[in-house]
Amino acid sequence: MLLLGIDVGGTKVACALGDASGQVLDSRRRPTEASGDPVRDLERMAADVRSLVEESGHRLEDVAAVGVSVPGPLDTERGLVLNPPNLPGWDRAPVRDVLQAALGRPVTIENDANAAALAEWQFGAGQGTDSLVYLTMSTGIGGGLVLGGRVHAGRASAAGEVGHLPIVWEGEPCACGLAGCVEAYIGGAAWTRRLAAVTPADSRVAALAAGEPRPEHVVAAAKEGDAFALAEFERFNDYLARLLVILTFTLAPDVFVLGTIARAAGETLCLGPVRERVRAHVWDFLGQDLAIVPAALEDRLADLAGISVALEATR
Amino acid sequence: MLLLGIDVGGTKVACALGDASGQVLDSRRRPTEASGDPVRDLERMAADVRSLVEESGHRLEDVAAVGVSVPGPLDTERGLVLNPPNLPGWDRAPVRDVLQAALGRPVTIENDANAAALAEWQFGAGQGTDSLVYLTMSTGIGGGLVLGGRVHAGRASAAGEVGHLPIVWEGEPCACGLAGCVEAYIGGAAWTRRLAAVTPADSRVAALAAGEPRPEHVVAAAKEGDAFALAEFERFNDYLARLLVILTFTLAPDVFVLGTIARAAGETLCLGPVRERVRAHVWDFLGQDLAIVPAALEDRLADLAGISVALEATR
Repeated sequence: MLLLGIDVGGTKVACALGDASGQVLDSRRRPTEASGDPVRDLERMAADVRSLVEESGHRLEDVAAVGVSVPGPLDTERGLVLNPPNLPGWDRAPVRDVLQAALGRPVTIENDANAAALAEWQFGAGQGTDSLVYLTMSTGIGGGLVLGGRVHAGRASAAGEVGHLPIVWEGEPCACGLAGCVEAYIGGAAWTRRLAAVTPADSRVAALAAGEPRPEHVVAAAKEGDAFALAEFERFNDYLARLLVILTFTLAPDVFVLGTIARAAGETLCLGPVRERVRAHVWDFLGQDLAIVPAALEDRLADLAGISVALEATR
Repeated sequence: MLLLGIDVGGTKVACALGDASGQVLDSRRRPTEASGDPVRDLERMAADVRSLVEESGHRLEDVAAVGVSVPGPLDTERGLVLNPPNLPGWDRAPVRDVLQAALGRPVTIENDANAAALAEWQFGAGQGTDSLVYLTMSTGIGGGLVLGGRVHAGRASAAGEVGHLPIVWEGEPCACGLAGCVEAYIGGAAWTRRLAAVTPADSRVAALAAGEPRPEHVVAAAKEGDAFALAEFERFNDYLARLLVILTFTLAPDVFVLGTIARAAGETLCLGPVRERVRAHVWDFLGQDLAIVPAALEDRLADLAGISVALEATR
């Protein structure tokens, strides 16, 4: 069974042709370059997909489903992208209908974090589990839920938007307009702003950063044992653990799959301490078998996110 | 289609015979009186069920499914009740297998809050919605999730245990052994302990309570306009709103169905102010259509909880 995936990111659009086992037969990427006219943007994507399929020696008629991973919020029922900050002009963009008309194949859209959660569940770190929570922590913090083997998307596809869960009630202002969001404490952008203010000039972080300290410099410096960087990770792990404890009591998942910063930081610096802190703050029977693991796909995610959505649509 | 429900509460066991429309044909209740031997307790329940069916002029063979609502944690796969505080001796009690052997009909068990969520979704305040979060707030605080039209039970059937979500990180000690749980702030038992310490002697709450102020006295006094009682509800509503905001960003549900204290307090004292506070702390598109409503079943819940589980098992 052939499946097509389209991953619409803030900077790149990836198109991939694959199968139900997660094998990617062929793929290509191009800059997103939103023209302001979503229909035009979508028709170009459809043209890319057509040539991808043809050049790889397959026929569009043999594609069972097309899955699109796209920034939310969405109206999945109508197949609309509502107004993602990274896609100017995409206000109520009729993604599903335009692609369906252009390709003649059934199209399903899903928000990017949900699609990533699904990909990790089908092909990555969450294979074989019943319930998975996926968190991606780069500039912002996104999340996706696969519960009982299905994506729980919720209203406007906004379930799993745990980056904006108030981890401190009426706390730090967040770029989203609210306050106290997890993202305002440990999202990459907020952390970068914090680092500009608190990084000691004589720390390893400052030396690595050459004036613009970012989370990746903290990761590198902490791995070298820099005290400031280690203290920053204490703080990061603390907020991350608080979030996972909240989600454990809400969802009782089998596994948390953590991408980007947590994954880059790794076992000793982040995953181990977070696991320990979570277990100390949940009931024994909830903590003992709870898996907290790094994301497995990352580089393959752009290709597999859309394919996962397509596969899910055929089930 | 005939369905049988058994609701095992801390004080009463309710058995009910009903149908898929939620009509209860006949029911009976008796005190729980856990003997310390769960098999004996369960066989007595089976005998009650048998006589209920016979005396109502039906045949056990015509019952499509039996649903059991029981305090968690559970091992639903094996049909075991693990170790609920209210049922002494019920440690890994083989509820499903004993009842199935005694009745000769398929038996499904579900934790009580999940069963209540399901009942509200099928027959109560959440009918016609896709995703519902049910909260019951009496001595403790329990919760159940119906997502995409199915119960999400999670590991050990512990999903929705949001009464123990840390609303204040490392805050007030909770009876469960953890700290900062929602239940430690606004659960009935915790609130009662608080009231013993803070109720002013000249307040209406004190007058109504005759020495032992409880949440129901606060409800009554607040409805009469007592300043202390109104301030107590401010506090209750604040914590409740914090919880609902967290759950909105996690689950993006269509509706929150609130039982017991919130329901008794009603629209002016609780639901209205909570709705307003939640809307002020979530994104507009999440808040605008979010329903926060009182539970509809309450008195009928003991009869319908088990029937709902049975109905779900036949789908």
